[in-house]
Amino acid sequence: MRYETDVIIELKSGMLDPEGTTIKRALEHLGYTPESVNTAKKYTITLDSDNIHAARENVEEMCQKLIANPIIHNYSITLREI
Amino acid sequence: MRYETDVIIELKSGMLDPEGTTIKRALEHLGYTPESVNTAKKYTITLDSDNIHAARENVEEMCQKLIANPIIHNYSITLREI
Repeated sequence: MRYETDVIIELKSGMLDPEGTTIKRALEHLGYTPESVNTAKKYTITLDSDNIHAARENVEEMCQKLIANPIIHNYSITLREI
Repeated sequence: MRYETDVIIELKSGMLDPEGTTIKRALEHLGYTPESVNTAKKYTITLDSDNIHAARENVEEMCQKLIANPIIHNYSITLREI
């Protein structure tokens, strides 16, 4: 079966987010009043797998080994069959 | 009312995604077989607004003026009251 997976990599709370701070300031310069701006990365990974459990396990491993840094990141995974 | 908005900024189809290509190759080196890896940015913007329609309009404007580049990006906005 073929699965499309969305992986969201967010900074752990308390981590500095300079990109978010810069965008917040730029929006304020344009006249907007956002209370906060936080940034994250989204990775969409398509893969073949026997079933949805194996696919999730596979993507979990990818996050732990390569995509996320467990010291500074939280990640969440959502899968759908395609 | 206070709203939390998720803005997803994706590359338009056909645009090169070198970060995605690099991650796909790195995953292959680790023994995984992803079919494709695409990257996107997620911005979570908290703001005060009179109602959800005004909030959405506000964030649409932010995307058009600052956050997204309409030549290379598609964006999607989801809002929830918090």
